[in-house]
Parts: sequence; structure tokens; C-alpha cells
Amino acid sequence: MTTDGRLPSWRPGRTRDDVLGFLDDAGSIPPEDRVAYFDNDGTLWCERPTYVQYEFYVDALRRRVADDPALAGEAEFRAVLTGDTAAVGEIGLSRVALALAGLFQGLDPRAFTQEVRDFVRAGAHPTLDRPLSTLRYRPMLELLGALRALDFSVGVVTGGGTEFVRAVSQELYGVPPERVVGTLIAYDLEQDARGRPALRRTARVLGDVNEGAAKVTNIQAQLGRSPVLAAGNSAGDHELLEWAAAAHGPHLSLLVDHDDADREFAYASQAQTFSVTEPVTETAERLGWTTVSMKDDWAVVFT
Amino acid sequence: MTTDGRLPSWRPGRTRDDVLGFLDDAGSIPPEDRVAYFDNDGTLWCERPTYVQYEFYVDALRRRVADDPALAGEAEFRAVLTGDTAAVGEIGLSRVALALAGLFQGLDPRAFTQEVRDFVRAGAHPTLDRPLSTLRYRPMLELLGALRALDFSVGVVTGGGTEFVRAVSQELYGVPPERVVGTLIAYDLEQDARGRPALRRTARVLGDVNEGAAKVTNIQAQLGRSPVLAAGNSAGDHELLEWAAAAHGPHLSLLVDHDDADREFAYASQAQTFSVTEPVTETAERLGWTTVSMKDDWAVVFT
Repeated sequence: MTTDGRLPSWRPGRTRDDVLGFLDDAGSIPPEDRVAYFDNDGTLWCERPTYVQYEFYVDALRRRVADDPALAGEAEFRAVLTGDTAAVGEIGLSRVALALAGLFQGLDPRAFTQEVRDFVRAGAHPTLDRPLSTLRYRPMLELLGALRALDFSVGVVTGGGTEFVRAVSQELYGVPPERVVGTLIAYDLEQDARGRPALRRTARVLGDVNEGAAKVTNIQAQLGRSPVLAAGNSAGDHELLEWAAAAHGPHLSLLVDHDDADREFAYASQAQTFSVTEPVTETAERLGWTTVSMKDDWAVVFT
Repeated sequence: MTTDGRLPSWRPGRTRDDVLGFLDDAGSIPPEDRVAYFDNDGTLWCERPTYVQYEFYVDALRRRVADDPALAGEAEFRAVLTGDTAAVGEIGLSRVALALAGLFQGLDPRAFTQEVRDFVRAGAHPTLDRPLSTLRYRPMLELLGALRALDFSVGVVTGGGTEFVRAVSQELYGVPPERVVGTLIAYDLEQDARGRPALRRTARVLGDVNEGAAKVTNIQAQLGRSPVLAAGNSAGDHELLEWAAAAHGPHLSLLVDHDDADREFAYASQAQTFSVTEPVTETAERLGWTTVSMKDDWAVVFT
């Protein structure tokens, strides 16, 4: 067993041994193949009671409705504003998310980035009494650091919006924007009132919504490389974890199990845009992934 | 005028002064905005008499036809194999390129990468009597190095295939695969004969063919940042160069003019998949871009 000071917030045990074992073996991986991808919501930071990006959209919607009350009558927005989760489920979270993303249609991407940064810097978690920016899992940040020390390219993959996560990925995780792979809003190149070129967000998704197999194909398309370490927490990460597990040479597939009601939340993870029958913890056991028990394996949860 | 040892293959004069002036001013650009993008064909390496990627495809087609002679009867392939440039033009280079890309449908992306590397490492230019890998322009490599010394993110943008260029971008230019933005072939995640996940190239393009405005929108989608230095050589780079020129703060738009019949080629650059009426050198003058005369501004052309 490795006894150095790496991963201080991980409790000794089989899970930590698996992770340290991978780090010890990583020296044999060719440098260009040292690629590690982490799902964002529920893997790098807290996703309950709702996704942070969803809170960002709801906040934007409330401000928009104050200016234009008619917006509140649209079915997607009515479901959101009344907190009617049954109605959101019936409409489908993907469709609701797309309607919410449409609130930012026409915006310059830099202005969108600034709005996201302002929200994450100033916001607080609705129940945990801490700033949004401290919802990151400390043990995962330690792992990101250990991977970087081994010259890994560390990236973030998300079922949510690429631009939302990349607005804060450098600040929160030290991950540059080009290593964030998520659901992509398309851009149009237009001209502003003075005839100068101007990038504008559209309400169209470019390619597929980034869940399931799309997490693998979109990493390949955007990065041109495959991860040998993947971490996730829900059925939407299944293909990604299976893909990393299929790598030749050292590899690691980590599944975060949210089983800590005292310090975080206890729930059976499932992507809210995605449905499968087998609980993902059982999939992990069947396929030989390493399951991280937040309760047992992490001495500290948040940063 | 700067008198240090930067850009030794650039002859003294206004063009070199413009480039050195930008480098001198770049310290005032916030580090996250230090982004420079270079078109590949005709800007970083030679594109005549045909694109290197086209030669790669033709080579693959010849080998494939040896196994399956019926392929030679398809209109796109017949035009290619007989060297009938009029027929290629009539069918359209985009459609011909897509048919050629389709030869690699079903291939694992790693296998495709290896084929490209083998071709570029072993191939020779058809008329210049030099290896393909030495077709890079030495003055441009010096500029890439000077930008990296200033902590720029340096990327390559291409109307051709992303995967073709990223297979060799690290070796040829020191540019990692994720900073190559081109025309993207979509991938499918399938299962191999033993039930393991397998990525396969398709014959579908993901998003738009990467010419004109798409060069700007695709850099934004893939990178999440905008270049403050852009270099190109054809009408397909117009929007990219105009976009860099619109940056706040120091910026530079470079147009390479192929006017050196003795050492390289002399021709009026135009993307072969793209048509406009104004010669791009006149556009450059009208919009205040910096034009690089290969004949006058470069003391050495190739590496």
C-alpha cells in the first residue's frame, strides 16, 4: 500500500488502494494517452436538490418574467416557476432545459460566460448553508491534482451545457474551457449594428445531448483522445465508464455512490434525462468498476 | 524596431514589424485570451499541386480499388482516379471529399490516425523533391514558437478533416489534438465481436463543413475562446481573419500570399470548396489585415 501524502481526504481502504494503484501504474501509460474525464454534476460537485445550472436558469427566468410577465404562461416555464416537478417530468427535462437555454438566444458568448460566473460566485446552496463555489468534492480535487502531477490531461464531461461548465471550469477545477465536453448550443456568426462580426448563441443543440454514448463520441470528436480514467455517478455515465474500462493498459472507472445523508445526500443516482432499469451501483459491481462510497471512503466531502 | 533573435526566417520590413509589434504588445492581453489560430493548408504547409489530405485519400482509394475494382466505377472515384479535375469540380470537391472519407467508414479512430501518420511520415511531395513532413513553412513554425513562449494557446483550423490534421498536429506543429478544429466526421459507439465498446467512424459530417463562418463558430464551440491572432490564405479564412481583427486589445490578422513561383508556387488563393468574387489579397488591403508575401517577407520557406 502506498503511504505517501496523496489523497489525504480519502479514507484508507480498498477504494483508495484502487485509485492509488492506478496512479502508481500510470507511469507506464504513454504521455499522449494520459487522459482523465470526470462527469460534473454529482461527481465533481453536488447536484441536489437540483442541478446548479437549473438554478441558474430559474434565476434568469424569474428576472426575465419580471420584465415580460407573458413568459410565465408558457408550459415549460409555468412548470418551472411553480416548482411542479411532476409537470417538468411530464414535459421532459431535456425539453424544459432547452426552453430555458432559449432565454439566452442571441447573447454574445462572453456575456453568457460572465452571467454564469457572477451566479456561481455569488450564489449559495439552498439547504446546505454554503456558497455554490464550495460544493466541490475535496477528495475529487485531490485526485485531479494527483493526475495533473502525472501530466494527465484532465477534463470535465457533462450532460448539461458545455458553456455553463466551461465558464467556471478553470476557477473551480483548473480545467481549461476546451477540455469541457457537454451539450453544445450552436452559434451563428452575425453582424452587429455597426457591421462588425458578432457571435450569437442560438436555441439549437449542436450534435446530440451529451448523455450516454454521446459522452464517448463527443469526447472523441472534441478531444481526439480517449480517457483511461473516467468518473461518474449515474446511468448517463455508463458508456463513458465502460469505455475507459476497455482501455489497453492501466485504467480506472470510478462510480460515486451518494450514500451520505448526513454530510451530503443519499439517493440512487440516475441522470434525470435518461432512464435504465438496473441500479448503476449494481452495474458497477457487475462490470468491475470501483465504487466510491461518499460515506465510507471520503473523510471530508466538500472544499 | 525589435532587434532580438525572434523570427530569424522573416526578412526585415513592414510585415515582420507588424508581427513583432503584436508579440511585443501581447503581454497586455489577459492570459486566458492569448489564443492564436492558424489555417493549415497553404498557411502552415504547402497545398499545391493538391491538398495533402487529398493525396492521402487517393492513395487509399487506389489500394481499395485493387481489392474491389467495382469501386472505380462510382462517379466520384472515377473522376479522382482519372485525374479529371473538371469532373471533380463539376461534382464538387466537398462531395468528392465526403465520398473519399467514406472509404474509412467503420474504422476505429486510432487505426485511422495510424494510417495518416504512416502516410505523412513516408510520403514525398509530387514535384518539390522533398518529404511531406518538410512541407511546413519555417517562418510560421518560428511564429508558433514565439507565441508559445508568450503562453499562447496555439491551434490549427482546417477546411479539411479534423482527424487527419490532429493525427500529425503534435508532431508537425506541437499542437495537441484538442486544439485542431476542422470538418468533423461523426462517430458511433458500437460493440465489437466480443461485446466490448468500440468507436467507429461514420460517413456523416458533424455540424458544418469547416469553411467561412463555420471556422469561427466551430472554434467557439470546440474551444470556448476566440483567437486574437488568426492566419489564413484563402477566402475560406475571411470570416476567421475578420473575427480576430474585431478583438478588443492587441490583435493580428495575417494573410499568406502565395507569390513565390521559384521556391513554392504563385497562385491566387481561394478555397477550392468556396467561391467569392473579390481576390482575398484585395480584401486584406481593404480590411487592414497584414499580408505576408512569401517571396519578399520570408528568407526561407520550408523546414
